[in-house]
Amino acid sequence: MSYRVAVVGATGAVGREMLKTLAERNFPVKEVAAVASGRSAGAQVSFGESVLTVQSLEKFDFTGWDIGLFSPGASVSAVHAPRAAQAGCLVIDNTSHFRMEPDVPLVVPEVNPQALARIRRGIIANPNCSTIQMVVALKPLHDRFGVRRVVVATYQSVSGAGKEGMDELWAESRAVFVNDPVKPEHFTKQIAFNVIPHIDRFMDDGSTKEEWKMTVETRKILDPEIKVFATCVRVPVFIGHAEAVHVEFAQPISVGEARAVLRAAPGVTVLDEREDGGYVTPLDAQGEDATFVSRIRRDPTVEHGLAFWCVSDNLRKGAALNAVQIAETVVAQGLLARPAA
Amino acid sequence: MSYRVAVVGATGAVGREMLKTLAERNFPVKEVAAVASGRSAGAQVSFGESVLTVQSLEKFDFTGWDIGLFSPGASVSAVHAPRAAQAGCLVIDNTSHFRMEPDVPLVVPEVNPQALARIRRGIIANPNCSTIQMVVALKPLHDRFGVRRVVVATYQSVSGAGKEGMDELWAESRAVFVNDPVKPEHFTKQIAFNVIPHIDRFMDDGSTKEEWKMTVETRKILDPEIKVFATCVRVPVFIGHAEAVHVEFAQPISVGEARAVLRAAPGVTVLDEREDGGYVTPLDAQGEDATFVSRIRRDPTVEHGLAFWCVSDNLRKGAALNAVQIAETVVAQGLLARPAA
Repeated sequence: MSYRVAVVGATGAVGREMLKTLAERNFPVKEVAAVASGRSAGAQVSFGESVLTVQSLEKFDFTGWDIGLFSPGASVSAVHAPRAAQAGCLVIDNTSHFRMEPDVPLVVPEVNPQALARIRRGIIANPNCSTIQMVVALKPLHDRFGVRRVVVATYQSVSGAGKEGMDELWAESRAVFVNDPVKPEHFTKQIAFNVIPHIDRFMDDGSTKEEWKMTVETRKILDPEIKVFATCVRVPVFIGHAEAVHVEFAQPISVGEARAVLRAAPGVTVLDEREDGGYVTPLDAQGEDATFVSRIRRDPTVEHGLAFWCVSDNLRKGAALNAVQIAETVVAQGLLARPAA
Repeated sequence: MSYRVAVVGATGAVGREMLKTLAERNFPVKEVAAVASGRSAGAQVSFGESVLTVQSLEKFDFTGWDIGLFSPGASVSAVHAPRAAQAGCLVIDNTSHFRMEPDVPLVVPEVNPQALARIRRGIIANPNCSTIQMVVALKPLHDRFGVRRVVVATYQSVSGAGKEGMDELWAESRAVFVNDPVKPEHFTKQIAFNVIPHIDRFMDDGSTKEEWKMTVETRKILDPEIKVFATCVRVPVFIGHAEAVHVEFAQPISVGEARAVLRAAPGVTVLDEREDGGYVTPLDAQGEDATFVSRIRRDPTVEHGLAFWCVSDNLRKGAALNAVQIAETVVAQGLLARPAA
């Protein structure tokens, strides 16, 4: 059995990673289409050993395509994801547009694969990058010790803002070196040699939408009773998000127990040596599939407190890999409505 | 009345800033000596319009000097600060060596100037940079609403590791640009385009000494009952530390009340607009004296919860400025044991 897969947003940072991940994991494809906005049509992108010519999303007919891996931006998915779904193509959408709709499953395969049993509109949502890596680490701890409250501060790379974000960090860093003026365009302030406590737009309560996403998505994926308070910060790193996670549990928890539970958990790699270099940084996580957990410590300032440092490649587990894993799970569970003709 | 002031560690990042701050603030100096290790002796450093020739610390006689501003590294202060104090020179020491000794005042002039009344050994300690800016912001809130617990994650610039840290970020960034290999020397991993969750050495409980400092110094300066849990992270920024501060108070507190209290507080500047660019980043704070507070939000996940973002120039308020402010306070309070001959 093999499938016709359309990658929508194929020229973006996540789209390219989706194509790479499909090829690396030998996803059973019969055919792959690279799809993007009209202005990218005709460009070429790599898929394994072959080269694909980008097709225009506006003109693309999803009839006969089994799976659409979407990462074109929220407003574009809002229009084209339902169009693809109506044509019988199961959409796995990486944008924020559908995530909180009650009849759209929001899935991290290691955490809540059971949510895939309720695909109603032909759309599955891929969570926000910073949420995915946190819930992969929290899930095994929650099952055993009960997560009550999470205070998290993030260190998020510019690739979370797409290829434009990466280009801007590069261009600004170069400008600093040659003493050229720096003109921020994509970010609100200079990101080179700086950090910016602002990701996505501001909400009424003073939080940013990125911070709100970490709260509401964690509750939808893991447990609606969990309280999450996030401060989300952009840092001048190209790829890889890090998070300082401070958790209060319902049950007593020791560092040793946490380590043992995390070591046995799917998708998690514990590297925690308490010595020079004995932890994972974003640079170490680039190109890796795992969510890395380091710096596990008891927090003695609160009952049943535990803190850890969590790092993952935001383009892989935070986006493309999680989307492809959803596709693999859908296939494995026999949930594709209409196998390839 | 004017004073003879020796700046010890005058060739380092903080030492140079101390000289600059003394000149800018027109501290009443009769004479200034630039003092550093023997290998820097003979070098020249600026003080206002004049140039000072660096003298060797090993051979320097502190007799007749009124104030010593020390920032030479903890092991050097351990030897030479008591030697200076015995010669009758009041030492204001920026290293960590004496901070937690019960008979050494640990002072932030906006927060606990009263501690200066108990100078016993002729040594006053300047707190850690990340602690100073946090207690400047917490103090007015504590007076009014009672701080119970603080969970803080830091974004600390490389200048906190001195001139070597700044040189390493610059050299590594350049190496990435020209595709040279990167060889970390001062930091444990590449800091260019990366973040490292490790500052100072590891302690037995898995915290770093930097994290421990934030806990114990905040308690010594502000209130021994306050609980502090910190995660300290080095980021690729040259100057300016940022902190995501999450606080639980004893009393109800609103965003409006917090803003009003902070606006009236000495040393604090509130810039909090909840729109693009309406917050302070480390780059904005470079060369500034204030501790900036932005992103003030209610934390609804805990009783009387409030979060904010706090930024300051770690070489100024975090080090040199605070030391000079201590000297100013000592002079204003008439606490100098022996006025200049």
